Amino acid sequence: MRDVCVVGLGLIGGSVLRAAAAAGRVVWGVTASAQDADAARADGFDVLDLGGALARAQDRDALVVVAVPLPAVEEVLRRVPAGVRLTDVVSVKGPVGELVSRVAPRARYVGGHPMAGTSASGWAAGNADLFRDAAWVVTAEDGTDLDVLTDVVELALAAKAHVVPTTAAEHDSAVARISHLPHILAAVLASVGADGGPLALALAAGSFGDGTRVAGSRPELVRAMCEGNRSALLDAVDDALGRLGAARGSLASTGGLAKTIDAGHQARQALHDVQSADLVDVTIDLTSPKALEALRALGSRGGRVVALNGSTALARTS
Amino acid sequence: MRDVCVVGLGLIGGSVLRAAAAAGRVVWGVTASAQDADAARADGFDVLDLGGALARAQDRDALVVVAVPLPAVEEVLRRVPAGVRLTDVVSVKGPVGELVSRVAPRARYVGGHPMAGTSASGWAAGNADLFRDAAWVVTAEDGTDLDVLTDVVELALAAKAHVVPTTAAEHDSAVARISHLPHILAAVLASVGADGGPLALALAAGSFGDGTRVAGSRPELVRAMCEGNRSALLDAVDDALGRLGAARGSLASTGGLAKTIDAGHQARQALHDVQSADLVDVTIDLTSPKALEALRALGSRGGRVVALNGSTALARTS
Repeated sequence: MRDVCVVGLGLIGGSVLRAAAAAGRVVWGVTASAQDADAARADGFDVLDLGGALARAQDRDALVVVAVPLPAVEEVLRRVPAGVRLTDVVSVKGPVGELVSRVAPRARYVGGHPMAGTSASGWAAGNADLFRDAAWVVTAEDGTDLDVLTDVVELALAAKAHVVPTTAAEHDSAVARISHLPHILAAVLASVGADGGPLALALAAGSFGDGTRVAGSRPELVRAMCEGNRSALLDAVDDALGRLGAARGSLASTGGLAKTIDAGHQARQALHDVQSADLVDVTIDLTSPKALEALRALGSRGGRVVALNGSTALARTS
Repeated sequence: MRDVCVVGLGLIGGSVLRAAAAAGRVVWGVTASAQDADAARADGFDVLDLGGALARAQDRDALVVVAVPLPAVEEVLRRVPAGVRLTDVVSVKGPVGELVSRVAPRARYVGGHPMAGTSASGWAAGNADLFRDAAWVVTAEDGTDLDVLTDVVELALAAKAHVVPTTAAEHDSAVARISHLPHILAAVLASVGADGGPLALALAAGSFGDGTRVAGSRPELVRAMCEGNRSALLDAVDDALGRLGAARGSLASTGGLAKTIDAGHQARQALHDVQSADLVDVTIDLTSPKALEALRALGSRGGRVVALNGSTALARTS
């Protein structure tokens, strides 16, 4: 079992460190926060400085997990030794991949994104069970190092997550649509509702409560998440503007909303279908020259890797 | 206690009939549905034809409640005798008010909208308790007949609802913002998400689930509700387009979303504040020349009438 070095011990990094330790790995961490370092040490974890931690990772051929916020990633990458096995848990994959190519091109990098979290932050908020049953996206580009990809899959599975393989571009587009756009639309809806004053808010019931719930999230976290995925989010916002503009035009001209409402209903049904589909088991040989292609195809169908048996990935898909 | 004649015995009308009967009123109903008529009669209710029911209402000076879908309202109004006490439970108030002015100008009309419902429909879906703790909007325009307004308040309170007084225009604007726009945005979000294919839907979690929930409602009901409030909904959609376009522009130009996200967060906080405000008791004398003004001011502050004591309305407001 490969050793794990986690750089950044906030909610996600701290949970990765705990989950890897709970799965029997040798682990050590790094954090710029004296408070998180003290707390992690008090919980029995080994916390080093960045240079010492990365040197040890190189020495032991460990997997390094970058778990700092996007603005701090570049500084960490500049210190990563050549040849090190490297992944990350940042919520956007294209920008991190570009940084790696520019700043640490000789690292053996495979991107990751465990899709779990709470509104809390810091070491104290984490736990070894945070990723149970969550999707952990792993990037599988042409040329991705399958040996390191397997390391990341093993880490994700050790953390009780399931693995969704895809490209950085497809990941960023998907999360723009299903995670970042919902925050933008919730903010817009909340504002338009509040513009109706106390009368409107007093009459608000289930549909407004549901549609604005995530507008209650901490603004600085939402902004960082959405702004970090700028390019893909612009496309998703443009799609939403197009559809909302079409609804406006139809309502103004014919008075009808059938196209908008019916499409939305079918789309919600598609969500239900994906979430309740009967799954079948498939296997993917990670030593095959077609492995990356097969992994991407699995992800694009909504499938996921649920176990590893040697170099064979066991997956479930509809 | 005034007799009640309910025209339309679907979910809402059938529940009004049951609630009024449960409160000790003499009640009778009308329905164009043979199935609903049979079911209501089997439950012990008196179901007449429209002409007979309205004649009896005129004879006994009863309150007539129009509880048919908006497209069927005009036909009912054409049969309403002059001088009859009249209200309705349709979810849009401006268009109904205009129809009354045009078709039944001599009826003594006060608009109403009990904000309760389920996804089911028809007599069988209703119950006497449907309106418990719900808001029941009552229109208080300049010139509104305070005697009939008091009848409607008594009916709403008998059904265990609380009464929110406002104008038809303010009601329609408010529900466009907090009830109809949420359906449009949920449909748009669901469609943009589904355009991301099975990968996006497989990664969807809480924010997408919350933001698209009402897109699972029956499309024909959503369309009828939204299309019936065309004018006010256009204004709300335009506000949303403006805010979404501003977010798009800011993200494209500066990369920042602070204004959008912060405004949404404050608006969601305003919703919480309205829903959790400490309320104080106030009274409104319904015989005062300022009564209509006082009622509207109560509604515009998010307040509500919770009881009647003779001609004094007991209200709660923040």
